[in-house]
Amino acid sequence: MQIARVVGSTVATIKDAKLVGRKLLIVREADEHGTALGKPYVAVDSVDAGTGDLVLVAAGSSARQTDLTKDTPVDAVIMAVIDSLEVSGAVTFRKS
Amino acid sequence: MQIARVVGSTVATIKDAKLVGRKLLIVREADEHGTALGKPYVAVDSVDAGTGDLVLVAAGSSARQTDLTKDTPVDAVIMAVIDSLEVSGAVTFRKS
Amino acid sequence: MQIARVVGSTVATIKDAKLVGRKLLIVREADEHGTALGKPYVAVDSVDAGTGDLVLVAAGSSARQTDLTKDTPVDAVIMAVIDSLEVSGAVTFRKS
Amino acid sequence: MQIARVVGSTVATIKDAKLVGRKLLIVREADEHGTALGKPYVAVDSVDAGTGDLVLVAAGSSARQTDLTKDTPVDAVIMAVIDSLEVSGAVTFRKS
Amino acid sequence: MQIARVVGSTVATIKDAKLVGRKLLIVREADEHGTALGKPYVAVDSVDAGTGDLVLVAAGSSARQTDLTKDTPVDAVIMAVIDSLEVSGAVTFRKS
Repeated sequence: MQIARVVGSTVATIKDAKLVGRKLLIVREADEHGTALGKPYVAVDSVDAGTGDLVLVAAGSSARQTDLTKDTPVDAVIMAVIDSLEVSGAVTFRKS
Repeated sequence: MQIARVVGSTVATIKDAKLVGRKLLIVREADEHGTALGKPYVAVDSVDAGTGDLVLVAAGSSARQTDLTKDTPVDAVIMAVIDSLEVSGAVTFRKS
Repeated sequence: MQIARVVGSTVATIKDAKLVGRKLLIVREADEHGTALGKPYVAVDSVDAGTGDLVLVAAGSSARQTDLTKDTPVDAVIMAVIDSLEVSGAVTFRKS
Repeated sequence: MQIARVVGSTVATIKDAKLVGRKLLIVREADEHGTALGKPYVAVDSVDAGTGDLVLVAAGSSARQTDLTKDTPVDAVIMAVIDSLEVSGAVTFRKS
Repeated sequence: MQIARVVGSTVATIKDAKLVGRKLLIVREADEHGTALGKPYVAVDSVDAGTGDLVLVAAGSSARQTDLTKDTPVDAVIMAVIDSLEVSGAVTFRKS
């Protein structure tokens, strides 16, 4: 899963009928310190994440394995909110 | 899902029989301002999008989860038309 | 789907039994003018394409959604031959 | 499968219910000598790997083919711990 | 499918039970001349390939469509050994 930062949100009135009511958040890939480095893209939120959260994003068919995304045309889902990351024995990120 | 700009269209007479009648649009990845930055590729339209629209594209097997694309050999589908994008509390794109 | 140029072919006597009789073409990603820019890779042909054709390639599990590629270990299929491409209102490619 | 080095771990209290109890390790792509070169990302551990191990990671839907990850929204799984790698007849990595 | 050169092998005692007995080869993406250019990664062999062979690798869920890899957590399989490649009418590679 990609480590990603939630940076915003998307409004789309015209969309596949199965996506009505789904929260479409804008995320960017982040490093182990939580710094956003990647290009923005859109993921469906399945864990009530919000702007500023550091999250995990599952891509591809795996994005359809949550109750909210089953059988829907989505290829990225936020499936965890990160509390902390530890690399080489040191905490590199802790949710404030 | 990728944020993408619809920039054109494709005509292909010889194609998989299951794709007859499908609209094949040319899209390019775009940033949070709607500026097209990526290379052109082709996505099937499932939401009556048109040239100039900023859209969301789902890739891979997820592209086959719309009524129009089920069981067809397509790996990219336009499944939403973007009204607006908000990043870090500011609107970065609004459909005109 | 990727816009791609067919540039050659592959001979492989030893291959998965389900691929016997399949045409394995070498393709390269192309731009909206049909100019080949990407690295060569191999796609199964499902639409009787030939060297020089500009085609659409579907990747991943979607490559197995044609009659010729169902249940086979292939991750790229040519599923359309492009007649013309139009970008920003101008024809950028027309099959000669 | 990608050759990857386990470099750390992730704590995430809020996550998809199917992931409760799963170990979420931080990995980075590595070369044939075991040197980590890639960006950090998160994979579910299915083989009791630990920090410092050189492992194989399967991505995409294949990440859901272990007993621990079946039907879960994960797109990367550690499915082997590497003992040794041999390239061009020479051992380039051996687990210490 | 990717054109790839087999450059080595992997030993992994601890691995998913479904992979016992599978040959895990190290491959690198190659060009139309057979020159290895890409980073090393690991693919399961399904066609009795060996070090030095130029092969085709199928990735993603397609890697699970051989008898040896069905339902296993692998995302890359060698499914053909290349005899020759022809680009623009000239043979660019022939197996020696």
